[in-house]
Amino acid sequence: MEVVKRTRMSPAERRAQLLDLGARMLAERPLEQISVEEIADQAGVSRGLLFHYFASKHDFHLAIVRHAGADMLANTEPDPTLRPMEMLHASVSAYVDYVSANRNTYLSLLRGSASGDEEMRDEFERTRAVQADRIVSHLPRLGIAPDARIILAVRGWIAFVEEATITWLRDPQISRDELVDLHVQALPAVTLTPGVAAALLR
Amino acid sequence: MEVVKRTRMSPAERRAQLLDLGARMLAERPLEQISVEEIADQAGVSRGLLFHYFASKHDFHLAIVRHAGADMLANTEPDPTLRPMEMLHASVSAYVDYVSANRNTYLSLLRGSASGDEEMRDEFERTRAVQADRIVSHLPRLGIAPDARIILAVRGWIAFVEEATITWLRDPQISRDELVDLHVQALPAVTLTPGVAAALLR
Repeated sequence: MEVVKRTRMSPAERRAQLLDLGARMLAERPLEQISVEEIADQAGVSRGLLFHYFASKHDFHLAIVRHAGADMLANTEPDPTLRPMEMLHASVSAYVDYVSANRNTYLSLLRGSASGDEEMRDEFERTRAVQADRIVSHLPRLGIAPDARIILAVRGWIAFVEEATITWLRDPQISRDELVDLHVQALPAVTLTPGVAAALLR
Repeated sequence: MEVVKRTRMSPAERRAQLLDLGARMLAERPLEQISVEEIADQAGVSRGLLFHYFASKHDFHLAIVRHAGADMLANTEPDPTLRPMEMLHASVSAYVDYVSANRNTYLSLLRGSASGDEEMRDEFERTRAVQADRIVSHLPRLGIAPDARIILAVRGWIAFVEEATITWLRDPQISRDELVDLHVQALPAVTLTPGVAAALLR
């Protein structure tokens, strides 16, 4: 029998530890199978203490999803020292590599039963809104004023990237680099007029 | 009290009637609130007879979803007598008008709790696969041989259209015609090289 050492942690550290354990378990099984008891055991704390940090199992699951989203966003943070199309390429490459490395988590969250839960969907939507805002905020650097049509197109592009990436993860018929290029070229293609898009991609 | 007249129908007619009633109810409330009892009452049949056509409530709900998907596909059937870009425009226009007229059904199916159910998601996927196949099947007429990259881009475009349309239905910041144009222009833009896309859109 494994002896679990109970370590004294600050509340913030303990919370982070519980979420890390949850996120790690999410790579191996669907969210709804993440048991509070197992996480508490692994952390060497009581079930009661876990519920001190998260009000319910659902709250804990939501926090894991938020944690996974924040981790993805941190890993795909655009580098503002690059030129716009290079920045986009670097960020999309990081996204494809991140979701490839976290394949199970990504597929089970976005195409699993979590998507039937309204609060989970709200979490995904907040993550997508950050991705969209990042892009929209860089458009003025390209001399493009973001209007309602462009903002809608960027939202659509996020869905394009998500769907094409999920399809690719399940059945990779093209290379990783081809997928990255498909995503990168699609953004100016859907948001801008054909002439401006062609000039950017030259 | 309303007296329900029990009409003698063929099994196929009865099945169609039950599905029509279900689809109509779906415009007013989420799928999970569609009650078998109410539908049976409206049709003037017993709950037992309804279960003769659909093995369970879940089966009935699945059949309603399939029926709604088939109805959308029938309403957006491309007209092969048109030139490719006109055909695309007509089909996308029909799609936007169809989901506008069936707003509640569309939003509750694609962004409601139904999306948490694996068999429901499979139904949505089958509908999307038909939409994608329709497009891919017309590419040779444009002199374009559909390869793995193009097929992936078409899948992504379906998601683009769905997401942008849902965002627009919730908060229409651009006109219906602008939305149609956004969708129509996005398809060659994401699937083809910028030069070919620009030529098609001229």
